[in-house]
Amino acid sequence: MKTVYIFFADGLEDIEALATVDILRRAGINVKTVSIMGNEIITSAHGVRIITDEVFEHTDFSDADMLVLPGGLPGSTHLRDFEPLQKLLLSHNEKGGLIAAICAAPMALGNLGLLNGKHATCYPGCEDTMTGAQPTGELCTVCGNIITGQGPAAAFPFAYTIVDILLGAGSSDGLKEGMMYRHLLAEGE
Amino acid sequence: MKTVYIFFADGLEDIEALATVDILRRAGINVKTVSIMGNEIITSAHGVRIITDEVFEHTDFSDADMLVLPGGLPGSTHLRDFEPLQKLLLSHNEKGGLIAAICAAPMALGNLGLLNGKHATCYPGCEDTMTGAQPTGELCTVCGNIITGQGPAAAFPFAYTIVDILLGAGSSDGLKEGMMYRHLLAEGE
Repeated sequence: MKTVYIFFADGLEDIEALATVDILRRAGINVKTVSIMGNEIITSAHGVRIITDEVFEHTDFSDADMLVLPGGLPGSTHLRDFEPLQKLLLSHNEKGGLIAAICAAPMALGNLGLLNGKHATCYPGCEDTMTGAQPTGELCTVCGNIITGQGPAAAFPFAYTIVDILLGAGSSDGLKEGMMYRHLLAEGE
Repeated sequence: MKTVYIFFADGLEDIEALATVDILRRAGINVKTVSIMGNEIITSAHGVRIITDEVFEHTDFSDADMLVLPGGLPGSTHLRDFEPLQKLLLSHNEKGGLIAAICAAPMALGNLGLLNGKHATCYPGCEDTMTGAQPTGELCTVCGNIITGQGPAAAFPFAYTIVDILLGAGSSDGLKEGMMYRHLLAEGE
């Protein structure tokens, strides 16, 4: 079973965090939500209080297949500035481990130099925070071990891309159909 | 300010509940999340624990402009079978009040006869639970005072439709753009 750690901070973007958890768990991936706020309760950008599975300081990340950073403000700046997460991202990246970030959260990767020479996407206007990256303006961009996404509605292609990378191409096809995503793309207004 | 109560039960569909809260709050609507489980902590269909704003038994709904039912199983059956909510839905409907339900949750309206003679949509396969309704198969359907939605990805058009009904046509246009929804519809895969 693949294991993903997704990092929750106060001010995270609700959809980017919880649609990603929803889709990955539907796919059978072992997802652990991890608070970086020192206790298990975080408050989202839109005022929803969520109880995470784990608190960073008490978590062993040695089985991580992927680390995921949802966006939102000030959620993304909390992620960027939290030193224990910085160290984990650097060591995971050195091993070639998969890392994903969406919306404003790619700033946490740019800040550590993890986007140098890479194609990446982010929320429009945040491009300058992706230090060293070539912004694509895409909904979702995969470049080497780094997956980036653009914003709330892009959480769907972002999470489906993660599923396909972890479980194999086409693994998200059934979810796209069953979650009415294909219907949305065909007939949404 | 418009006020919306959205009902949370164990087994609710994460995206349908939280994308709706996110979008309505972005629009400036006063959204109150209300647990029907007797205490403020509910656990979603995908294992996320959420602390609601209110518990049903201690809430005054007299200022409600709209009542919203997210889907998911067994969340929707909990909503359908909770008698105090049944009474609230019936009295709100009698006054011509707005009611919205998505995915499997229209069963809670069909069960009370609120869909008789109405066009409505729901998660494919749940049509028989919408007693008296004419199923449309649409992502989102508005018929009189009842708004229904189809499933997780349809939470976007469902919530944008609620915004436009409560705040006026076109009120969700900026959100559709800023949340990358228009980009998703144009280029999603």
